[in-house]
Amino acid sequence: MSYTAPVKDLLFAIEHLAQIDQVAQLPGFEDAGLDTAAAVLEECARFNQDVIAPLNRVGDEHPSSFQDGVVTTTEGFKQAYRQFTEGGWQGLQHPADFGGQGLPKTIGAACGEVLHGANLSFALCPLLTDGAIEALLIAGSDALKATYLEKLVSGEWTGTMNLTEPQAGSDLSLVRTRAESQKGGTYKLFGTKIFITYGEHDMAENIVHLVLARVAGAPEGVKGISLFVVPKFLVNPDGSLGARNDVHCVSIEHKLGIKASPTAVLQFGDQGGAVGYLVGEENRGLEYMFIMMNAARYGVGVQGIAVAERAYQQAVAYARERVQSRPVDGSSSASSTIVHHPDVRRMLMTMRSQIEACRAMASVAAAAYDAAHHHPDAQIAKDSAAFYEFLVPLVKGYSTEMSQEATSLGVQVHGGMGFIEETGAAQHYRDARILTIYEGTTAIQANDLVGRKTARDGGQMAKAVAARIEKTEGELLASGTPAAQAMARELARARAAFVEVVDFVATQTRSQPNAVFAGSVPYLMLSGMLVAGWQMARALLVAQQLSAKGQDVAFMQAKIATAHFYAEHILVRVHGLRDAVVLGGDSACALALDAF
Amino acid sequence: MSYTAPVKDLLFAIEHLAQIDQVAQLPGFEDAGLDTAAAVLEECARFNQDVIAPLNRVGDEHPSSFQDGVVTTTEGFKQAYRQFTEGGWQGLQHPADFGGQGLPKTIGAACGEVLHGANLSFALCPLLTDGAIEALLIAGSDALKATYLEKLVSGEWTGTMNLTEPQAGSDLSLVRTRAESQKGGTYKLFGTKIFITYGEHDMAENIVHLVLARVAGAPEGVKGISLFVVPKFLVNPDGSLGARNDVHCVSIEHKLGIKASPTAVLQFGDQGGAVGYLVGEENRGLEYMFIMMNAARYGVGVQGIAVAERAYQQAVAYARERVQSRPVDGSSSASSTIVHHPDVRRMLMTMRSQIEACRAMASVAAAAYDAAHHHPDAQIAKDSAAFYEFLVPLVKGYSTEMSQEATSLGVQVHGGMGFIEETGAAQHYRDARILTIYEGTTAIQANDLVGRKTARDGGQMAKAVAARIEKTEGELLASGTPAAQAMARELARARAAFVEVVDFVATQTRSQPNAVFAGSVPYLMLSGMLVAGWQMARALLVAQQLSAKGQDVAFMQAKIATAHFYAEHILVRVHGLRDAVVLGGDSACALALDAF
Repeated sequence: MSYTAPVKDLLFAIEHLAQIDQVAQLPGFEDAGLDTAAAVLEECARFNQDVIAPLNRVGDEHPSSFQDGVVTTTEGFKQAYRQFTEGGWQGLQHPADFGGQGLPKTIGAACGEVLHGANLSFALCPLLTDGAIEALLIAGSDALKATYLEKLVSGEWTGTMNLTEPQAGSDLSLVRTRAESQKGGTYKLFGTKIFITYGEHDMAENIVHLVLARVAGAPEGVKGISLFVVPKFLVNPDGSLGARNDVHCVSIEHKLGIKASPTAVLQFGDQGGAVGYLVGEENRGLEYMFIMMNAARYGVGVQGIAVAERAYQQAVAYARERVQSRPVDGSSSASSTIVHHPDVRRMLMTMRSQIEACRAMASVAAAAYDAAHHHPDAQIAKDSAAFYEFLVPLVKGYSTEMSQEATSLGVQVHGGMGFIEETGAAQHYRDARILTIYEGTTAIQANDLVGRKTARDGGQMAKAVAARIEKTEGELLASGTPAAQAMARELARARAAFVEVVDFVATQTRSQPNAVFAGSVPYLMLSGMLVAGWQMARALLVAQQLSAKGQDVAFMQAKIATAHFYAEHILVRVHGLRDAVVLGGDSACALALDAF
Repeated sequence: MSYTAPVKDLLFAIEHLAQIDQVAQLPGFEDAGLDTAAAVLEECARFNQDVIAPLNRVGDEHPSSFQDGVVTTTEGFKQAYRQFTEGGWQGLQHPADFGGQGLPKTIGAACGEVLHGANLSFALCPLLTDGAIEALLIAGSDALKATYLEKLVSGEWTGTMNLTEPQAGSDLSLVRTRAESQKGGTYKLFGTKIFITYGEHDMAENIVHLVLARVAGAPEGVKGISLFVVPKFLVNPDGSLGARNDVHCVSIEHKLGIKASPTAVLQFGDQGGAVGYLVGEENRGLEYMFIMMNAARYGVGVQGIAVAERAYQQAVAYARERVQSRPVDGSSSASSTIVHHPDVRRMLMTMRSQIEACRAMASVAAAAYDAAHHHPDAQIAKDSAAFYEFLVPLVKGYSTEMSQEATSLGVQVHGGMGFIEETGAAQHYRDARILTIYEGTTAIQANDLVGRKTARDGGQMAKAVAARIEKTEGELLASGTPAAQAMARELARARAAFVEVVDFVATQTRSQPNAVFAGSVPYLMLSGMLVAGWQMARALLVAQQLSAKGQDVAFMQAKIATAHFYAEHILVRVHGLRDAVVLGGDSACALALDAF
């Protein structure tokens, strides 16, 4: 099944919702306007459709394999990765100082969707490299930057994040890997890390592991964790590769999905200690790791949108082709393609509308990131940062939960054929299943939303978002079309539910934490649906204006219909979520623990 | 991961909700009271826990295999199947005249849940045999009954349902397999059938295929389809096996789940024609097939409950054992088992409460089936039949959709470990995915609910159910406890939503069929949640009474807490579904077909 990058919809979001023209006014982004976005995205689409997407199925059928410490990726991956690096795709968002293209996230994230849509397993490798680059940029010494950044930005070397240990998953305070300080300022690391994506592979000549570990004598808990660079091969002063470091892959996992991407168990220090280089200061590792994790969380949200889009495209293709049963309205006495059947249309619209809504939300978040990092006005930068921070758990949490529903519907549209692996619909369903888990489960995102993003500021940022939504409702009402009216009505109802929940969270987290945290995931889902729906409302307004001007009318009418559907089928789900949060906190925790 | 049959909860439903005492007053079921139910279920639990459940994982890891027309099932399956037949488990619900035990469905269906919970793949074989028995009982000639029924009821031979062809899935009007009438009253069949569960295997010496085909000259469409028995081996007059019939397995599928159960492509008549025997009359095949399919649909609903229960047990075990993070309420400064965390509890309760609710609904439906078939009062039998018929799409549709959510949550509770196949949580997720597809997709169930079960009688049966629910609300209010009040409130709100939707469906199906059918699945989900919730409300009332009497207090308190949770977290979902049906019919079908 081929993949067509949704360039048009990405550019619609970039132009009209993320407002690339404003991004292009930020210092350093002068050349990054709509034309650049379009040119980059079209090239990106061509490359990924032609080179990366065809490897998606074969990667599932012939996963990475492990033997004697060596991981061999699926045939074709190594060659494709070389083309990826040669095209400069790894450096898209990274600074020109280190060989990158220095494009805004508003463009880079859109390219990310295309890469992930083409091949989730393949795309994980660059995603992790992005994280390593981010960490070094923020906290690496000049020496570390000089040694590693260019190679990472070019993609010649790849990066990993080594957080998890058997006893330490969501709870990093339990990390036990230890680092012993050596003469000359280096460290030796000892320990076992699990679930390391692309922790070992054959696509690049070196792998730069970013590793959480405890220096001897460090405080217990999260305040005693440091971050280290541990390269697979040590790097000589002239930049050439030196000795093999004492970090070894002992096995890879047999997984439900994303099978082509090797998930490694790494053993550090079995032969005397793995040489590590401290990133930043001792005991501040978690702080740095969170910075890089935040980027990765956003990226995983985009993965959700991407795999849902791919599942949607495949479902549409099947629904257009499969002939089965007569139309329920009696409009034909012959069996028709199933895309005519109302329930199939409802399923496809459920996928489509949420994909477009999440894409719009992610695009707006990316623009906020760019403003946060580049706006010359400190207050605007600060506000943008707060807005972005509020959006990250929604982009990660809601888009990935959405991807489970969308890929499941993708299977369902195929009927019995969807359950047969050869069809390929099931792969998306299996691949997507990791997205609500890694880089922080949905509950971890929801804890972040409740704690750091809502309770901490007493719900101020959440209320500010609600106020902006209310403004959009006014514009919808002023427009007065049936679709706009329906959207205004459902947006207002959903916003009211949101405000009620925000008040509950802001005022009750201290006094009844169990009840509030029992509602954290419903709160996240409610918020995600609302904020994504708000972007669909903005899209609807734009589409109405452009359609009235005769601009790309079919596309604009489709956008209006899709937004209308979102209002009446997706936004309406928030009320049950509101009830669950506001009414259900006690009943969620009422069952005696030994009664489960 | 071991499996413990939920005998206690099954008996609670059988005793207090299905009211086995009333079933035991039906002619022929005099000995089938609570004591019998308990004795049979306990024996059933023992057998399935010890013999069948341990084969679940191995069947996933080493699926049935195909070579040269021969299917070899997973090692251990053949031996276990022999024990299954020796124990008389196939004949549980079938007439004593043919060697069965003649137990009511109220007991048989509970045993079914245990068998399916132990091993979904294994249990499919007996499930399909049940269907074949049902069809022969209803429409088979005395000769067919004499030849096949005893062997099927004992399980010595197994049965299959041959409906699907490559071009004919949900739409059986497109069946092309043809039957040519022969001298002596037999037929010769020619054609290809796909997706035939246990269409070929090595567990029994003969396989009795029930096959839909067209007799030459039959009318087009569904009115020209006949039903045939096509045995793998012809049967001699003395009952011994004769020549190999001309039906051959040409391949089996590579599936997402239920991998141990072979899904066959069967070729009929490549060597001169497969000998077939007409069941009932020509051209009435679909009618008979629907009878047997209705039994199978109920059975698939029970599969949903069963696999969800198994996923729940595994998730609970992991949550009790896995230590990660401190409690959010600050009650401990040490990391605790994750079952303490509110979101994990919410997930487990979401699984548990829906499992218990669906189980209660299925049990009540089984009792209605028994009354429909055995009650001496014709009016009561007729009413019970109508009630059962109304419940079948809910048991099938809602329980199986629920199983997708529950098994997904089962993965989620495991975090990263859930994505690793060795853990086993992913198997339930994969296995469950077929349940909303086979024996009629959720949309097919929903069409049945809209068309035959609601629009046809103008919503009368649905309204009668609503009236019974209202009565339960009165009892809840009279009880006055917080849990009962919460349940009464949410039940009343949900019932109002249901009545609104029923009115919409009953009045608009003719005038705006597309809008109504676009809401068919939300209507089904709403109805299932409500009716299952109603049974949880009844359970709550019983549990309050028994708890007050000091009877099994821990169990009863758990039931109350679980029902309370269901009211505030599950029943509240119906309002979004109501909105989708009543508001969203037009927007579901508004997108131009070429815009997808």
